[in-house]
Amino acid sequence: MRKIMIIGIGAGNPDYITVQAIKAMQQVDIFFVTDKGEAKEDLLRVRTDICERHLSDRSYRVVQIQDPERDRSPHSYRAAVQTWHEQRRAIYERLIVEELDEDECGAFLVWGDPSLYDSIIRIVEQIDARGIVGFDYEIIPGISSIQALTARHKIPLNRIGEAVQITTGRQLAAASTVSDSDVVVMLDGECAFQTVTNEDVDIYWGAYLGTDDEILLSGKLQQMAQKIAEVRAQARLRKGWIMDTYLLRKSEPPAD
Amino acid sequence: MRKIMIIGIGAGNPDYITVQAIKAMQQVDIFFVTDKGEAKEDLLRVRTDICERHLSDRSYRVVQIQDPERDRSPHSYRAAVQTWHEQRRAIYERLIVEELDEDECGAFLVWGDPSLYDSIIRIVEQIDARGIVGFDYEIIPGISSIQALTARHKIPLNRIGEAVQITTGRQLAAASTVSDSDVVVMLDGECAFQTVTNEDVDIYWGAYLGTDDEILLSGKLQQMAQKIAEVRAQARLRKGWIMDTYLLRKSEPPAD
Repeated sequence: MRKIMIIGIGAGNPDYITVQAIKAMQQVDIFFVTDKGEAKEDLLRVRTDICERHLSDRSYRVVQIQDPERDRSPHSYRAAVQTWHEQRRAIYERLIVEELDEDECGAFLVWGDPSLYDSIIRIVEQIDARGIVGFDYEIIPGISSIQALTARHKIPLNRIGEAVQITTGRQLAAASTVSDSDVVVMLDGECAFQTVTNEDVDIYWGAYLGTDDEILLSGKLQQMAQKIAEVRAQARLRKGWIMDTYLLRKSEPPAD
Repeated sequence: MRKIMIIGIGAGNPDYITVQAIKAMQQVDIFFVTDKGEAKEDLLRVRTDICERHLSDRSYRVVQIQDPERDRSPHSYRAAVQTWHEQRRAIYERLIVEELDEDECGAFLVWGDPSLYDSIIRIVEQIDARGIVGFDYEIIPGISSIQALTARHKIPLNRIGEAVQITTGRQLAAASTVSDSDVVVMLDGECAFQTVTNEDVDIYWGAYLGTDDEILLSGKLQQMAQKIAEVRAQARLRKGWIMDTYLLRKSEPPAD
């Protein structure tokens, strides 16, 4: 039986990789590696480094996947993402059929944690459901950029007994205020924190978390928003890409 | 300078530990280990196993901490937790002063991820702020039970482009309906999912995630709620303790 593993390698720091991920990688015959546009070279190098470090005494193949172009200004966001998933599903399915022998193990190495704003689980699930090619699959969790963010800022994710919301820049911009719970924002290419009008919110922002290029900034949102937007723009220009995330936290109320 | 490391060892599976956590543990002179009541023996064994596996050629000390009793039915939840933190702060501070030499490194091994519903970061921060004993500290993220839950159920945490809320059983019971975003519930000793009235919600539940005793159940919430409550009660009786978490997900709407 073919086997497919979706392996989270952690966000940024190569040492974020788990023992489980290393053991999984040591069973892999083919690594399917996707192209991530401008970030391609840097992110590819991290994955190649991780493979070389942990698989020195093993032979394996690397198959590069050219992801289809995605409509970035669609009429419907969900429909555009689903179309893009469908195209990728077709490409991935064909590669599994053509490249992976009956008794082989293929793997997707995923930045951060595969369960968080990544489409590979859905795609593999759809390929499995279609039944064109038979395989078992397994998911190996990895340290997410949210965890890197809080660890590097040395803060808890939640206030005592309180909820936390994980959301996207798109959703935050649509809301434009932060409600009762603290909010972690991912996939924000547009600095949606600048649209937040709350006065009583702190921001904890991080880019290139866990890497040598890491940038951490924090403080009152209304005082920091412009600075973070500027630092972000400069860093993105300098490196050609950026990956960042942030936590918006209501100022701690007095003890009751 | 004294050093303190707060090390996430992952939730359940000993292989969830990261290379970063192993490297950190290899610098540690004293492990501070806390008592977790009924779960003590099992959880202590996992930590001892992890130390023995990764620190075989190194000498280290283990200092057990007897956590103070916490008021479980308080007038004010937040105030009770803060009082309990204050008592623990005093105990931990004294141990650091008495046990950790100037050039030594002490560590707290934390189940799951230290940033998520765990008080150790706040306690260490408070000790640091008081300035009675000087030290540097660092936080090492670990695989959380949320990540174990989604990986073992083979599901993404979020729907495409949608938000996810992380909350507690206490907060869920107070709300009693699931709002727009999907909800992960932690610290729910009272089966608060039974209070949720939504008809269109799926539950993905897991206990003892990543261990040999792991139990996974999923399905329509209204059909599964009673069964999960029963299975949970039986498992808790059998083992003497339980750790569980679950995701409540609105049924996927049709593509727009």
